Order: sequence, then C-alpha cells, then structure tokens
Amino acid sequence: MIDAANTTANVPPDIDRIDRVVATLREQKLDAVFCCLPSHVLLLTGYWPVMANTVALFTADGSVHLLLPEDEEEIAAQMSIAQRATFQPGSLSQITNSKKAIAQPLAHLVASLGLDSARIGVELHGTLAPVSYLAQSHLGSTLRDIVQDAFPQIVLISADDLLVRLSMAKTPRELDRLRLSCKLAQAAYEAGSTELKSGSVEPRAAEFFRSAYAACPARKQAVCTDAFYFCMSGANSATAHAAYARTRTRTIEPGDLAMIHCNSQADGYWTDITRTYTCGQADAKQTAMRAAILEARQAALARISAGVVAAEIDKAARDVLAGRGFGENFKHATGHGVGFSAANHDAIPRIHPKSTDILEIGMTFNIEPAIYIDGYGGMRHCDVVAVTDHGAEVLTDFQNTASALELAA
Amino acid sequence: MIDAANTTANVPPDIDRIDRVVATLREQKLDAVFCCLPSHVLLLTGYWPVMANTVALFTADGSVHLLLPEDEEEIAAQMSIAQRATFQPGSLSQITNSKKAIAQPLAHLVASLGLDSARIGVELHGTLAPVSYLAQSHLGSTLRDIVQDAFPQIVLISADDLLVRLSMAKTPRELDRLRLSCKLAQAAYEAGSTELKSGSVEPRAAEFFRSAYAACPARKQAVCTDAFYFCMSGANSATAHAAYARTRTRTIEPGDLAMIHCNSQADGYWTDITRTYTCGQADAKQTAMRAAILEARQAALARISAGVVAAEIDKAARDVLAGRGFGENFKHATGHGVGFSAANHDAIPRIHPKSTDILEIGMTFNIEPAIYIDGYGGMRHCDVVAVTDHGAEVLTDFQNTASALELAA
Repeated sequence: MIDAANTTANVPPDIDRIDRVVATLREQKLDAVFCCLPSHVLLLTGYWPVMANTVALFTADGSVHLLLPEDEEEIAAQMSIAQRATFQPGSLSQITNSKKAIAQPLAHLVASLGLDSARIGVELHGTLAPVSYLAQSHLGSTLRDIVQDAFPQIVLISADDLLVRLSMAKTPRELDRLRLSCKLAQAAYEAGSTELKSGSVEPRAAEFFRSAYAACPARKQAVCTDAFYFCMSGANSATAHAAYARTRTRTIEPGDLAMIHCNSQADGYWTDITRTYTCGQADAKQTAMRAAILEARQAALARISAGVVAAEIDKAARDVLAGRGFGENFKHATGHGVGFSAANHDAIPRIHPKSTDILEIGMTFNIEPAIYIDGYGGMRHCDVVAVTDHGAEVLTDFQNTASALELAA
Repeated sequence: MIDAANTTANVPPDIDRIDRVVATLREQKLDAVFCCLPSHVLLLTGYWPVMANTVALFTADGSVHLLLPEDEEEIAAQMSIAQRATFQPGSLSQITNSKKAIAQPLAHLVASLGLDSARIGVELHGTLAPVSYLAQSHLGSTLRDIVQDAFPQIVLISADDLLVRLSMAKTPRELDRLRLSCKLAQAAYEAGSTELKSGSVEPRAAEFFRSAYAACPARKQAVCTDAFYFCMSGANSATAHAAYARTRTRTIEPGDLAMIHCNSQADGYWTDITRTYTCGQADAKQTAMRAAILEARQAALARISAGVVAAEIDKAARDVLAGRGFGENFKHATGHGVGFSAANHDAIPRIHPKSTDILEIGMTFNIEPAIYIDGYGGMRHCDVVAVTDHGAEVLTDFQNTASALELAA
C-alpha cells in the first residue's frame, strides 16, 4: 500500500514553499507537521483533496508525503510532487470507515520515516475552512488519536498557529495559481453580466454566472475547479453584510441593485469577489453610492504596501465612505485573507479597524468597501489583491467603473 | 444574549423526533447531548446551519436549544422550535474567533440548565458530513474543550454512535421534508434532460440541470435549498464508481452514455440520485446494460421490507447483474443511508454484501445498481427509497424506463 517511489515529474516543486515550511519547522524545533484540513494539505503539498480525508505529512528535512484514498491518487499526481501512499476506504469484501482505513497506513508512514518518538505538530483547534465537494470528512480528533495511540512516545504540539502563519504570504507559484482562479471568475462575470436583467429570480440570475463559469474554456488549465455564485437583489442586498451570502427567491425589478457574489476555486486556490450592478440607468442615490465605493476602493488600494498596518487600509476606505455620509452603512471590515481561505473573516491579514496585522509581500486578501441601506439595498465591490514590492496588484481588475456596472433594465 | 423565551410558533414541533431522542438519552443515562455537525444539529433541532458553528443541545427532559451566530437567527426561526441563544462572531469593535465567541454563551447555557456536573454526550470522532455552503466551521475538539474547561465536573461521553442510530429512521415529518427535496431534484432532472444533447461539454451539461433547479418554482417551499449536479460522459462515466463524482471538460459525443448525478438538499435533507442517458438511440450494448440495471433495480426494490437484512437487498440486485454477465462491472455496494447524509457509504443502512444492518420502517437509503466498463462508459440508476409498512416507497420515481432515458442525439 505504501509506495515511497511514486513521485511524479509532471509538477514542478514549489521550492519557495518547501524552504519556508522547513525553516518554520526548524525554528519551532519540530521534526514534522501533519494535517488534514484541505487548505492546509494544499499549503504543505500542493494537493487540494476531494473528500478531506487525505493526510499531509511534511518533515523537517523537507520530504513531503500524502496519505490519501486510492480513488484520489490520479488527481493528486497532477497537482503535487509529494510522495504518495494510499488507503482503501472500503470495498465489496469489507465494510470499513476512515479511521479504520487510515490507522494502519498512517502508522506505517510515521514509522518508515523514523518519527515514532518525534516531536510533531498537528491541527488541534477548529477553524473555518472552504469546502468544494458536497460531502467532506471531519476527521476532528481522529487524526491526533490515531497517531498518539500508535506511538505513545510522540510529542504532539498544536500546529494551528504555525499553519496560519505559513498560509499568509503566498509563494510566486501559489500567486500564479490564484491569478488563474481569479481569471476564471472574471470570465464568468463578464459573460454572465450580459445575461443579467430585471425579471429574473435570484437563483436564475446567479446561474447566468455559474453557467458562464462552466462554459469557460480556460478552466482546462485547472485540474479541479468550481464556483459558487450568489445573487442578492433589491432589499435583499441590504442584508448582504451577514457572514454568509444568500440567494433567495426574489424577482429582480427594474431600477434594482443586483449584487453578485462569487467564491470560486481552481485547484484549491479560492477567490472572494463581488460586483453590484444597477438594472437600468443608475439614479442619483445609486450614483452617489457608486462614487463613494469606487473612491473608497482607490483609497484602500493606494495605501497597500509591505510594512503597513492593516488597520490603516481599513481606515483609508472607511474615511472616504464616512466623508460621503455612508459611515454607518459600511457595516463590516474592509477585508480579510483570501487564497487558502475564502469567506473567513479571521484569515490574516484582517483589514479591520482593530487589526495590528502588518502587510507582507505575497499576502493576498480582499478589499470590499460597501454600503448597506436597510429596506433599500446594498452595494459592495470586492476585489482580490496581492501585496507586491511596488504596492497592490489587483487580481480582479475588471468591471470597476460605474459605466461597466450599469446594465440594460 | 441568552433569551430562553424566544421560541417561535411558526414551526410545528416534531413530537416523534423529540420522543425518540428523550428515550435514547434516558436509556443511555445521559442528562443531555450536544453537537455541532450540521446533520446532527438538524437531527436534534430541525435547523440546518449555514456556517456549521451552531451548537445544538438537547436535554433528557426534552428541552431543545440552539446556540448560533446572530446572523443565522432569522433562518433558524423558520426551521426550528428550539430555544435560541446567539453569539456574535465578530464586529467592527473587536476581532474574535468562533472559540472565543462561543465559549461564554455556551457556558452560560450549560449553567442555566443546571448541567454543570451532568453526564453529557458529545461528538468526539470524525465522520463524513454533507456541506452546503462554500465555507464551514470545523470546530473539532474545540466544542469539547470549551465545555470541559468551563465545567471540570461534567462527564463527557462519546455520543457518536447514539447520533448515528438516531439518524437512521426518519420521522414522518422528516420523511415529508425528504420527499420535498426529492421532488425539487426531480423537476430539475425533467427540465434539464430536455436540454441535454451531444456537443455539450460536461460542465455545461451539468449546468442544464442546476439551472433548472434554480428556476424551479417549488423551491419556495424550502427556506434554504441548493443542488450539486455532475456530468460524467463516455469513458469518463466508467470511472464514476469512485467515492466522488467528477465533472471534467470532455465534450459529449453522439452515441455516448451521459451520467447525471445529483446531491441536493432542501433545509438540510439530502438526496442522492443518478440517471444515465443515451445520446441518441441506444445501441445493442446500451440496451443490454439498461435492461440489466432496471431489472436489478426492481429486484432490489421488491426485496425491501422492515426486518430484512440489508445484504439481501444487495444480493437481489447483484444476482441479476451477474446473471446478465455484468457481475464484475458492478463495482460498489447497492446503496447506503441517505437523508441526513449524502455521499456517505458508511451511513446506515449499508446495502452491502457484508452488511448485517436490519431494515426498519422510516429508514431512507439509495438503490444504485450500475455497470462500469473501463474505456467505454458507465451506467448507473440511483433512487432514494424509504422503508414503509408495506415495503419500499421510491421517493424518486421518475425517468425509470429505457425510453424515458433515451434522448435526441
């Protein structure tokens, strides 16, 4: 079952990522780290698991391992340079479950790497994680229990903070993957918005964009990709400051604001994008909202630079909106980390009034100035940006003017 | 923050479910049970959480409680009779996280119910859980840690098996909700298949069905609903026996088999449905595959009755396929539990050759006879069924003949 010689040569190794993980493990005096949350598996190995019962193990000397269900091996081979071992989640000859299926091969892997009395980092606490398949494994404490039961000499340390810190700044290769993910979403925005008009119910409106995503030829550049699109129109868009997006059954009417929110992923790299359209020519109120939001966006983007405290980015956007009379209507932070995470407001850097996070080159996050007016509607413009050595790179630099966002009624 | 008097009268209580949970808690000598996996929260309270950081608590005297993020309260009020308390996951004035946000209100709830030295069941082990939003909380051991740290006198017991057993047989009300969920998926199959033809790439083909789901007027009968549709065509459909469904970028050609798989949910009740179409008139091989599968389906359905060992249902289908020369091509079990779970092959009852599970009235599962021929294609027909006092009720009794599944090329 274990075959340590099956690395594939198709994928170039991300040397920057390997170096960073090795340096962190040495600094923390850990012999290895292992995890199963999909975004952490992606971080350590380049593979975005389907069922989330894949275990990633990374040693302090830089060897990278995946223990995954045999059904997923073909996909993993296309994404990751990790050495792969497989387990069989079930068969016609036996009924099993993830814990039973994983326990023996995982113990074998740990022993074969001489880690049976090592000091190892492991996920202990919960988090908010993006999910791309309809069902996912919640291994919870199962992973920790398997390893500790098999090797009582192993010292297990929480690796939660370590994994969070490693996730903040992307390597050049990871940033390239996130750019592709954003390009796919952009293509769907551009095609989908030509179909959007009043008379559509919200789920149908969201489907214009998702269908466009499905038809996008560039999706062939990803091994696995999918997108969630949401539509919140009229008064429904005023409540889009909730922690989750929600498409309901309202019919879009002429003159409405129609907010289209997207979280999409290509091979596990997640976007977080919003565009708000006016259905028909914008009226005076909508024009004022638009001008304030686009100016707040520019102010935030202009402030982005390595070394800046994240709260200052938030302040730049918030001051513009307050100055134009919309201070109370901007109900959430200006942004949060995006890439390994999607809708996680806790992801670093938090572009929040109280945030002391310091921007670093390679950090990716969203900038989402917004105005929510109860009973009337909401407007949000959300971009994915990266910190470069010359300021902000906007990975979603499309449909960013008032005229581009004004549709036929 | 805690308001124990805010029950809503809009939703009728599911007395059968309450009685069953109370009886089980008393039998297990537990004062209460608490959990956070969405399907378990749904089981205990009728609420299907969005972000999966909702905690459900059910006491042995039948009082039902939700501790949920304040953003979700309006939705929960439409689905659940539980008493609701809320927490605030974050705000402009503070940066927090789920653990910090939940700890104090959860401790308050436990204390207010006099459970501070009780014997309480809690989720400990991992499982495979269906997910309906793009990001979900993995609380993992956080929930257990919060309670144990706050109340060292509480005895925490694994409630994993208890929750699995309670999930097996649905109450009449739960079965009604699952019927609605299946009806929505049926409407999308019927409308989507009129658009399906050769020349479409797989993601586009899947979107015909998802778009139809989005446009379905009956979705207004659910508070929250969504569907995953997958298309696997030609040789791609031969690998659809993997643990996960996968839409790729192949273009459907005339004469192909086109397998459309669906997992959808209405208010958290999940379906698991497959139909396989022929694009153009079926040839002799496809006709033979179809006849074998439909006969295997009938044989399995005819064998379903309370008290029957699940392995016998599997054998009924498997014997038909073997007798027609497709024994080696039926590569998975005939079914598994569906409803609170979706794509979980471990969900009881397991309709598997080695299963000793005994069918009970109210159990819901799928019946999915299939033939996979490497390099050529696969055909699967998957229905959701319930065990009633007069045998099987098929909740997805549509497009179940060779002629209904033969499309224009």
